[in-house]
Amino acid sequence: MKIAVDAMGGDSGLRITIPGAVQAAREFNVEVVFVGEKDKIKAEINRLDAEDARLSIVDAPEAVGMGDGVFAVRRKKRSSILVGVQLVKDGGADAFVSMGNTAAVVYISRSVLGVLQGINKPALSLIIPALKGNTLLLDVGANANCQPEDLLQFAVMGKVFMEQVMGSVRPRIALMSIGEEEGKGNELTKQAFERLSTAPLNFIGNVEGKDLYAGKAEVIVSDGFTGNVALKVSEGVIETLFHMARREITKNFFAKIGLFLMKGHLKRIYKRVDYSEYGGAQLLGLNGVCVIGHGRSNSNAVKNAVRLARDFVAKRIQEKIREELGRTVAPREAKA
Amino acid sequence: MKIAVDAMGGDSGLRITIPGAVQAAREFNVEVVFVGEKDKIKAEINRLDAEDARLSIVDAPEAVGMGDGVFAVRRKKRSSILVGVQLVKDGGADAFVSMGNTAAVVYISRSVLGVLQGINKPALSLIIPALKGNTLLLDVGANANCQPEDLLQFAVMGKVFMEQVMGSVRPRIALMSIGEEEGKGNELTKQAFERLSTAPLNFIGNVEGKDLYAGKAEVIVSDGFTGNVALKVSEGVIETLFHMARREITKNFFAKIGLFLMKGHLKRIYKRVDYSEYGGAQLLGLNGVCVIGHGRSNSNAVKNAVRLARDFVAKRIQEKIREELGRTVAPREAKA
Repeated sequence: MKIAVDAMGGDSGLRITIPGAVQAAREFNVEVVFVGEKDKIKAEINRLDAEDARLSIVDAPEAVGMGDGVFAVRRKKRSSILVGVQLVKDGGADAFVSMGNTAAVVYISRSVLGVLQGINKPALSLIIPALKGNTLLLDVGANANCQPEDLLQFAVMGKVFMEQVMGSVRPRIALMSIGEEEGKGNELTKQAFERLSTAPLNFIGNVEGKDLYAGKAEVIVSDGFTGNVALKVSEGVIETLFHMARREITKNFFAKIGLFLMKGHLKRIYKRVDYSEYGGAQLLGLNGVCVIGHGRSNSNAVKNAVRLARDFVAKRIQEKIREELGRTVAPREAKA
Repeated sequence: MKIAVDAMGGDSGLRITIPGAVQAAREFNVEVVFVGEKDKIKAEINRLDAEDARLSIVDAPEAVGMGDGVFAVRRKKRSSILVGVQLVKDGGADAFVSMGNTAAVVYISRSVLGVLQGINKPALSLIIPALKGNTLLLDVGANANCQPEDLLQFAVMGKVFMEQVMGSVRPRIALMSIGEEEGKGNELTKQAFERLSTAPLNFIGNVEGKDLYAGKAEVIVSDGFTGNVALKVSEGVIETLFHMARREITKNFFAKIGLFLMKGHLKRIYKRVDYSEYGGAQLLGLNGVCVIGHGRSNSNAVKNAVRLARDFVAKRIQEKIREELGRTVAPREAKA
């Protein structure tokens, strides 16, 4: 299996992507195709002494910046993102992994690869580490405007992912809303509730924002605007708390000793909630496999993102989504 | 000044509301009118030995449950919420404070008191303790569906509140979205961005979910669905982190000592982020003053909610909102 990795993506670029992906090539028995500035990639690989890993390079001299807008992205015909996605399209790689500009990767992969038949919009989905088990939240930002039908499709795609990649049995599916009762929510969620509750899914109803980390469901569906706000708020809260903790605790000698004694445990907690640890977000519903890691990813997160891409390909998620759509969405369509 | 307090509201009812409000009557020089089951209120007041505080009681034998829906709420003509709001309407009290069912208080106060002229929807607004200063987030749940014009009105109301009650000078106003650039967001936020940027406000543009606690703006406007999800996600993250911390730390002897040494500091952090400490959320744009506390409020939060209601009345927020609307919204309307 060949996994194309955007060598240039992420806040730290090559210094992080190359060691992480080299390690993935070693551990997961895949060939990694680095996409980016050839000479720099070569130099970094040499520095790492990585002859044992199956690696190759495809040159892409342009890089998309983390803040580049769609216009800038379109103009860069030889960017590592565009070249990498094109590799997947042309069969030169089985999947593409990038830690780069999320909006750019979503935009390019959507327009180059297209969506699966029967899917309106690809959804960016992310594993949330809950108190008990894991929850897949989707969409976390690919589609700011959604229709009820889109949320049903997200549910189907999320179900397949959790079954195939995470081994969930009869995953519980919930709708992100602002009250647990059926009538609560906005126009979109009220209509989506009706669609979800009549589909052949293990739909358990609405959940609220506070339930995101409670492990109440294996799949939580949401429009991409709400899902993105939910995710970013979580990041903000965690950062703020750790910042406050540092500020509070360094004021006091005994508290400092306390912090020292607790350090390993606090790190473990932070690791559990820091989503760069979970490899990345995957675009579901795309006609191709694409995993997007956090810009702040460390090399371990890059390695995990490659593993996620490998699992995605190996479990034939696309094919399974197509089958599941036939079972879940089509029968109703036929009746209508 | 007379503040009506829903004695029956909140998860712990009278045991919390009465001591908190009695303390408020003592400290803030207000008369507290308790609304609820007369005999029970009397017994609790006697138990507290509170002859020095200015207190009175209005009987309301029915109580709205924390989970009651709108239909149940409507049927209870003598509920403490309805009787309390009616007191404000009739001039028997200057403001109403409840720790009860938020949806019920919003529904009743909106239908009994009505909204200010020029306002489409009242907004539930809440002070968020940011890393630097405080941020008012609105709407946090009164209106699941909003129009761009509503968000402009929320901005105006938030500005007045932060100036008058919190003493902000030229409060910065931001729009909750999913990217900082103008073009980012959903249909609602794109249109609202345009409205906000042409209004005579100190509008600083979009902020993202991660900025909610960063203190980037004094006012963040959002539709009530997104605002509620953002708030509830924060609650969920904080609860999950503290739960994990307890679980992790009690496993290890040294970590337990560490926790003991840090306890006071951790409590201070928790207090800073626990929003029951901030009194409550206020409904802005209503034709009357109404403060809603968290169901989990302790007596200190009840006291703070009464202070918030007092400030709201004393600073004549309603009147100032009307004036500000004239300056901000009307000139544009006239031009159109």
